[in-house]
Amino acid sequence: MDLNADLAEGFGRWHLTEDAALLDFVTSANVACGFHAGDPLTMRSVCALAAAKGVSVGAQVGYRDLAGFGRRYIAYEPAELAADVLYQLAALDGIARTAGTRVRYVKPHGALYHAAAQDPGQAGAVAEAVAAYDTGLAVLTLPGSRLMDAATQKGLRCVPEAFLDRAYTATGGLVPRGQPGAVIHDAAEVTARAVRMAGEGTVVAADGSVVRVAAESFCLHGDTPAAVDVGRRVRAALEEAGITVEPFVTVG
Amino acid sequence: MDLNADLAEGFGRWHLTEDAALLDFVTSANVACGFHAGDPLTMRSVCALAAAKGVSVGAQVGYRDLAGFGRRYIAYEPAELAADVLYQLAALDGIARTAGTRVRYVKPHGALYHAAAQDPGQAGAVAEAVAAYDTGLAVLTLPGSRLMDAATQKGLRCVPEAFLDRAYTATGGLVPRGQPGAVIHDAAEVTARAVRMAGEGTVVAADGSVVRVAAESFCLHGDTPAAVDVGRRVRAALEEAGITVEPFVTVG
Amino acid sequence: MDLNADLAEGFGRWHLTEDAALLDFVTSANVACGFHAGDPLTMRSVCALAAAKGVSVGAQVGYRDLAGFGRRYIAYEPAELAADVLYQLAALDGIARTAGTRVRYVKPHGALYHAAAQDPGQAGAVAEAVAAYDTGLAVLTLPGSRLMDAATQKGLRCVPEAFLDRAYTATGGLVPRGQPGAVIHDAAEVTARAVRMAGEGTVVAADGSVVRVAAESFCLHGDTPAAVDVGRRVRAALEEAGITVEPFVTVG
Amino acid sequence: MDLNADLAEGFGRWHLTEDAALLDFVTSANVACGFHAGDPLTMRSVCALAAAKGVSVGAQVGYRDLAGFGRRYIAYEPAELAADVLYQLAALDGIARTAGTRVRYVKPHGALYHAAAQDPGQAGAVAEAVAAYDTGLAVLTLPGSRLMDAATQKGLRCVPEAFLDRAYTATGGLVPRGQPGAVIHDAAEVTARAVRMAGEGTVVAADGSVVRVAAESFCLHGDTPAAVDVGRRVRAALEEAGITVEPFVTVG
Repeated sequence: MDLNADLAEGFGRWHLTEDAALLDFVTSANVACGFHAGDPLTMRSVCALAAAKGVSVGAQVGYRDLAGFGRRYIAYEPAELAADVLYQLAALDGIARTAGTRVRYVKPHGALYHAAAQDPGQAGAVAEAVAAYDTGLAVLTLPGSRLMDAATQKGLRCVPEAFLDRAYTATGGLVPRGQPGAVIHDAAEVTARAVRMAGEGTVVAADGSVVRVAAESFCLHGDTPAAVDVGRRVRAALEEAGITVEPFVTVG
Repeated sequence: MDLNADLAEGFGRWHLTEDAALLDFVTSANVACGFHAGDPLTMRSVCALAAAKGVSVGAQVGYRDLAGFGRRYIAYEPAELAADVLYQLAALDGIARTAGTRVRYVKPHGALYHAAAQDPGQAGAVAEAVAAYDTGLAVLTLPGSRLMDAATQKGLRCVPEAFLDRAYTATGGLVPRGQPGAVIHDAAEVTARAVRMAGEGTVVAADGSVVRVAAESFCLHGDTPAAVDVGRRVRAALEEAGITVEPFVTVG
Repeated sequence: MDLNADLAEGFGRWHLTEDAALLDFVTSANVACGFHAGDPLTMRSVCALAAAKGVSVGAQVGYRDLAGFGRRYIAYEPAELAADVLYQLAALDGIARTAGTRVRYVKPHGALYHAAAQDPGQAGAVAEAVAAYDTGLAVLTLPGSRLMDAATQKGLRCVPEAFLDRAYTATGGLVPRGQPGAVIHDAAEVTARAVRMAGEGTVVAADGSVVRVAAESFCLHGDTPAAVDVGRRVRAALEEAGITVEPFVTVG
Repeated sequence: MDLNADLAEGFGRWHLTEDAALLDFVTSANVACGFHAGDPLTMRSVCALAAAKGVSVGAQVGYRDLAGFGRRYIAYEPAELAADVLYQLAALDGIARTAGTRVRYVKPHGALYHAAAQDPGQAGAVAEAVAAYDTGLAVLTLPGSRLMDAATQKGLRCVPEAFLDRAYTATGGLVPRGQPGAVIHDAAEVTARAVRMAGEGTVVAADGSVVRVAAESFCLHGDTPAAVDVGRRVRAALEEAGITVEPFVTVG
């Protein structure tokens, strides 16, 4: 099983993600590429650390919106979006290469993650950019998303991810934020879900039914020390349960 | 002889350089990379046009300063500057590759051009970034500049450029802007200087003395229709004089 | 009748609107405030010119999106949008005051104009910001828009505008761009429509019916010399027809 | 004695200063205005809190440089700098007014603070902007700085500030950062210096001599919980010593 988290989400003087701590237990680092977060110097140092620790580097591409941290939907034209994604991906990959590694996958951030899951136009733009750059790249995204369709059509590998701290519906979707119980805060429960999802490929949904979750990666959070601690425990629990924790691509 | 000009210097809705017209007569296109000018969509379309016309693509890297168009000196730390240059260079190169070409050289823009000519710290940062990315890249710059020293030390090829519309001093420097006669506006004179510099490697300095100018590229302007017209005439005059006009690197 | 146009829509090195020419015939200048276009130095010089010519200054507020020129919808939270509008409005008003005039009205730009016409959340945010700043300000907008409702509720004066170069439907709406005949390019026809709308308050709709248009201002374009020429002719024709061309508020 | 600190120095998702905590003990809040830090929504909420607590609001104006947090010198033209300062000042003042208070003073941030202390061009630009906006505003700055000269010439009140955690030279200057002992980390010592400076107007310099320090405000830090704690202790110690802690201007 792969563990992914967002890294390099600061900008200049501002820090957000606990980059060094995260690189001790994640296997895939979604590195912000400068449009919604992530400055070039941070990108460079995070790539060097990731290379040293054998962590797979992914391009966490986002809307051009520092003020909104990429969390506000923007009605891009597809050609503009593709160019913005390509620019970010290429910038990070070049930086990664000088740090002794490469970008292995792309994961859209925030509002772009959600738009690319639902809107065929934005999904197609992301897939077009990734495929134009390198058809050997993977796309890390929500199972059943429009991005998964578009990327598959372009011949890209799609890696479905699951959310350990989010409640699932009986049909395998996420319980929307804002509904009671949508987010699971208890570390022990999060850890137990990880072991079950990784071992059996199932999760107990909000209504008590057992749902299949075909994840190849678990999404962890890393913007607080508490989140880092949960992630560390998830990794330890998976390893204790005999599950190999490794990147979904061969690194190095 | 090579003819270089700045291209892609718009940003979104704003246009500045006559990109399509310039690509008809320049042999090297200094493409803005997004920090002082140049949006990803424009970069992509200019690279496609350059590829189609056999024009060599260079990374016109600059300070992060859209409001100042990269013309204001910024006291970057070397590590920050190197990361910013690397980011821009990698972004453009990735875009160029998807357009069927590659970045062949780097030319700093505006205040960075001047700072890298005089300040060893900024010169070293630029050279470090370029060499880290690809030691096969050239650096296009002012003869005798600190950037030339730093790039040479890093094993990079340095390509000296000359300015056809600027008066030279008896020691081969440029007469500072603001002094009378510093800028030559007459198209015929600019054209005649081009033929002489390309053919004999000399220019008549402001004091009437003849100075040696070892340029491998001429810098042309392209932000007005008049400037484009001068560039076109320079190319025609060089070709009439039997001088081969071609990129300073092999393209394609 | 008032004539309004967008001004100050450059940014740093980039110019777009023919500011000096426009100030010779418009009576209301929608000055861009820095988020989608408009740098502080340009804002300051345009305000000084407007003050000298007795032209009313309005805040052309927009989304924070230089790359998209404010033309891409952004899903702002209302509180964020209100704060961004307030910031832009206050910045321009302070600048205007040092130039001897004041901001008299607000007109949202681009995608915000359209969102505030249809989305009660964004309309309410704009109205809240304007009313918080000064309930004596007017709002210039599309008749029948959500912004008109929200601004009226806040006690703000609403000034409806009409578009001289856009075809109208039989119900008084605009024929959507992209449909044949949606945009009227003939200068003589534009001018004739202006005189009819100003004199009789009617327009001939696309289906030939006569529709009432209760405009207190006509929106003109100024981003090309041809557009400037049309505007100049509109003003001359209105004056020849005996219609007083003046700001919709008292200036100076 | 007045106590000032930098507030609102986050941007969107990123937080830096402990705004609510600081407003409990400072008497003057230097609110970042959006160019180097400070988004409009944060500015609005910080102004509301400051108004509620009777804290004086100042405009912490800076270079347009989010990536560099305003800490990199930028070679602005004076007219550009004046316009940028005016824009920031007006934006904050408008926001402050809607929150029930007003901007009472201006304090340049980071590299602009230092440039305005030494460079007459940048000092003059800042003073021009402030005076154009409101000659009733004060300028908070380093004693003996070029900004103090320029502001005085414009008829502005100048408020000299002292640094409690910085060693002084025998001539009343600051020991440069990087030299041993330049920064005082011991909270008790910082507190003792505050009481002495406020009570006697003197400080013991690095060489043991006693130097006169004519400060009307002490600059405190607020970007870490530890810094906040020091500030709180300074205020308590001053009050215990019978020194009135209050803004240097009348608020409300």
